[in-house]
Amino acid sequence: MNIHSAHSIYDHDLDKNDANYSAMTPLGFIQRTAAIYPTKTAVVYGDVRRSWAETWLRVRKVASALKRRGIGLGETVSVIAGNIPEMFEVHFAVPMTGGVLNTINTRLDADAIAFILNHAEARMVIVDPEFAGVAEQALHISGRDIPIINIEDPTWPDGHKIGSDTYDNLLAEGDENDEWVWPADEWNAISLNYTSGTTGDPKGVVYHHRGAYINALGNILDWGMGKHPVYLWTLPMFHCNGWCFPWTIAAAAGTSVCLRAVRAEPIFDLIKREQVTHFCGAPIVLSLLANAPDAMKKGISHKVSIMTAASAPPAAILESMDELGFDVTHAYGLTETYGPAVVCAWHDEWNDLDISEKARLKARQGVRYTVLDGLMVADPETLEPVPADGETMGEIFFRGNNVMRGYLKNPSSSEKAFRGGWFHSGDLAVVYPDGYIQIKDRSKDIIISGGENISSIEVEGILYRHPAVMEAAVVARPDDKWGETPCAFVGLKDGATVTEADLIAFCRANMAHFKAPKTIVFGSLPKTSTGKIQKFILREQAKGL
Amino acid sequence: MNIHSAHSIYDHDLDKNDANYSAMTPLGFIQRTAAIYPTKTAVVYGDVRRSWAETWLRVRKVASALKRRGIGLGETVSVIAGNIPEMFEVHFAVPMTGGVLNTINTRLDADAIAFILNHAEARMVIVDPEFAGVAEQALHISGRDIPIINIEDPTWPDGHKIGSDTYDNLLAEGDENDEWVWPADEWNAISLNYTSGTTGDPKGVVYHHRGAYINALGNILDWGMGKHPVYLWTLPMFHCNGWCFPWTIAAAAGTSVCLRAVRAEPIFDLIKREQVTHFCGAPIVLSLLANAPDAMKKGISHKVSIMTAASAPPAAILESMDELGFDVTHAYGLTETYGPAVVCAWHDEWNDLDISEKARLKARQGVRYTVLDGLMVADPETLEPVPADGETMGEIFFRGNNVMRGYLKNPSSSEKAFRGGWFHSGDLAVVYPDGYIQIKDRSKDIIISGGENISSIEVEGILYRHPAVMEAAVVARPDDKWGETPCAFVGLKDGATVTEADLIAFCRANMAHFKAPKTIVFGSLPKTSTGKIQKFILREQAKGL
Repeated sequence: MNIHSAHSIYDHDLDKNDANYSAMTPLGFIQRTAAIYPTKTAVVYGDVRRSWAETWLRVRKVASALKRRGIGLGETVSVIAGNIPEMFEVHFAVPMTGGVLNTINTRLDADAIAFILNHAEARMVIVDPEFAGVAEQALHISGRDIPIINIEDPTWPDGHKIGSDTYDNLLAEGDENDEWVWPADEWNAISLNYTSGTTGDPKGVVYHHRGAYINALGNILDWGMGKHPVYLWTLPMFHCNGWCFPWTIAAAAGTSVCLRAVRAEPIFDLIKREQVTHFCGAPIVLSLLANAPDAMKKGISHKVSIMTAASAPPAAILESMDELGFDVTHAYGLTETYGPAVVCAWHDEWNDLDISEKARLKARQGVRYTVLDGLMVADPETLEPVPADGETMGEIFFRGNNVMRGYLKNPSSSEKAFRGGWFHSGDLAVVYPDGYIQIKDRSKDIIISGGENISSIEVEGILYRHPAVMEAAVVARPDDKWGETPCAFVGLKDGATVTEADLIAFCRANMAHFKAPKTIVFGSLPKTSTGKIQKFILREQAKGL
Repeated sequence: MNIHSAHSIYDHDLDKNDANYSAMTPLGFIQRTAAIYPTKTAVVYGDVRRSWAETWLRVRKVASALKRRGIGLGETVSVIAGNIPEMFEVHFAVPMTGGVLNTINTRLDADAIAFILNHAEARMVIVDPEFAGVAEQALHISGRDIPIINIEDPTWPDGHKIGSDTYDNLLAEGDENDEWVWPADEWNAISLNYTSGTTGDPKGVVYHHRGAYINALGNILDWGMGKHPVYLWTLPMFHCNGWCFPWTIAAAAGTSVCLRAVRAEPIFDLIKREQVTHFCGAPIVLSLLANAPDAMKKGISHKVSIMTAASAPPAAILESMDELGFDVTHAYGLTETYGPAVVCAWHDEWNDLDISEKARLKARQGVRYTVLDGLMVADPETLEPVPADGETMGEIFFRGNNVMRGYLKNPSSSEKAFRGGWFHSGDLAVVYPDGYIQIKDRSKDIIISGGENISSIEVEGILYRHPAVMEAAVVARPDDKWGETPCAFVGLKDGATVTEADLIAFCRANMAHFKAPKTIVFGSLPKTSTGKIQKFILREQAKGL
């Protein structure tokens, strides 16, 4: 009666079919939310308020127009835009054609943008008026003759356009009843994000639908977001697709509060006016809020949750956030891991600790996301995990479905990144006895002085403790005797003063003497668009000292 | 420079590897939670309290022992147990061997259990002392000569064992350092659940790791569970693997509060003592709590969330739950959909409505889970969706990753269930203009009287409104003139009385006359172990009237 086999009874007649197997994609999230909560606000931008039904209508129209204009499976559509509603919409509309969304860092220069447009083989570019100038230059440099879609934004003073075609034309052309593409394979590319690349040409990180789906849910799970978050766009959407949050907010039936420029006043205004519950940003954003005038901070009585990454939030910042009633979650990830994939999962017992102890615990990057399957700190050669002693440094490795497909048209870099079946992050960390990891440095940022490794992050941590210091970055300075010595670049707080000698003495009083900087340079620090200090520039400066 | 193709730049050198592709499985959840929250309580059972570290240790030991005893890929391990810690543990330990967990309904008779053991080709059976008698009989009937593992429970008065081998032996034999099996393929079977089958032989529903993973997360997302739920096991774990909640609680780093018997007193005691935040159950469980003495209900000040399914919670029950401060979520699913896959997603605005209106809205099964990709009500022949008018009936169809692989060794039933690329639920429903669905009946429960369809659920809804009625079930009674007429079986509340004529008059006053029952039979109703009224028994009775 039964078909028996050498294998197992489960190997027979239990195959995939259209009813029981569906490609995982975040595109289903917006479809569902628009159907269930059509009148709920999806997007706020100045005076513009659009419901999920309206947003879904616009998204379908744009997808339809893109398809009619020939965008299809595996074709790149580049976008240069700020955190405006159209930028949110293309996170759905482009993949709904089968195409791949390539959001470009808006602070890149024309050469870098031209490189990306060519490397990505962009078939179309969508441009926000704020960046029309640099986009036009980039297109000229690239020599690409592709359709340009101008987003028109009445709130943007300079209405410069490249040609005459507009996003509104797409809306007018598109038919919301056209069929859109549920991916045939969840492994299909959904987006392409170029790493900011401190040196050399940027690399194109390819995301797939499966990863975008699962990390979007991971954000809800590990941040404990609940339903209907009101999310403020302080984090650029061009950055790892806004850490997957456009898709997360769609899944959670939340509201996206758009924001062109990260300034304290509009942030506080929107937190109050829109009752913002969640936002993300580098510690520099938190610092901006902490240092805002008291009057601006008043009048917030609801709970606000912040996710921060890029560097550990200093104790003083955490204390200011605490006073505001803002709850800070520290996360970590890379462009290659869809944004955050590691989180400093909090323990309720830790709430009873004093602020400095809390800050020490929260400075750690933490543990894997629920949807990340492997995280380890290990020897970069042997892949042997380091002991969990809080001291032995190793490289951070990731494994799981929220790790990129690879670098576009760059098999050698992909192979290197995936050697041994783990993604090599290039970040150096220790593991504490409780399994939480803490980053000590980027591999390339480590300073080797007299044969001893010095973590630039450790030295920076001490500098940040000095009351006059606003920001600090430590790099290696070539030295005949020691090989390298630590060289600190320091920005001071408004009105604060301190001498080089005093600051070095402060460091020596707080750490092993050989780790203390030998040189200090005062001034403001060069940063990437996401608030990361550009150490490669400082490293060049240090060489020239 | 670039490899170009007829297809797309994304088709090259961006393949799956161990770093970026990992089989989705709920087994990673317990590993992660035990690592991050080792001292947090995982399981409570009477005086037994075990942390996640202890539970994970036990799970690894049991998995190791099962492997050493030869359990491997695609082999069935059957379990007959109540909601006790060992039952929770085997949800991880068995799949960690590559084996398939077959939890058996503990209220089945020996013949039915014997059928399952044979059909599932069980290689081992794990037995709770409460069910040792029936298990022994079933094994005898089945003729299977397989290892029997006795769970020993000091709190269970009758320590009957089948043979001498015990779960403690597995714990003693197993080595927690043995490697366990992360599934090579997320499509591999994780469990086998036999449908209660109102007639004919039960069918074995096969779940895979992918579906168990995604529906476990779906529970957190759509119930808005947050982190660290304290979950009371009022729902049998043998029932669709407890609606995937063993895996959900592991993912959410919660606590499983075990419970052998569903009685009001221990439920209220545990809610208070353990500060239970969540539990699930059929409306009969809610009714049990609503009708408990007031003294028992006192002393609960924290929020308790209940998920209910199987039938719509009546207004009176919802009102009682409201008074207790219990929040009720109405969900719907089948064994074939990993338990709940549809939920009556609540709108905050609805909180302002009066209780009867709230009950009317909440009686609807609702909308698809975030992780279910398709839900429709359609013509069972043409698969044409019905209009969303709240009136036109159709069959409910599911599509997505939380739909079963199929029925074990039953390709014809699987093919029928999946015809047209949708899972045919056999439930009849309408769709309201807002897209929410409401079940009107099982296909086979519909009554056809004088050519008119009568929904048995609609008639029952009216009966439940009568103050004397505790429970009601309506089935077709064969009739020479009308073909069929509605026949109601009614259980009255303690001390309440009503005549057949009065109750029929009450129905006629509240609905179309042709729908009112022609016959009423008073008495208590036969139920399945999960609280579902067994209409097939009543149908037989009605035939004999």
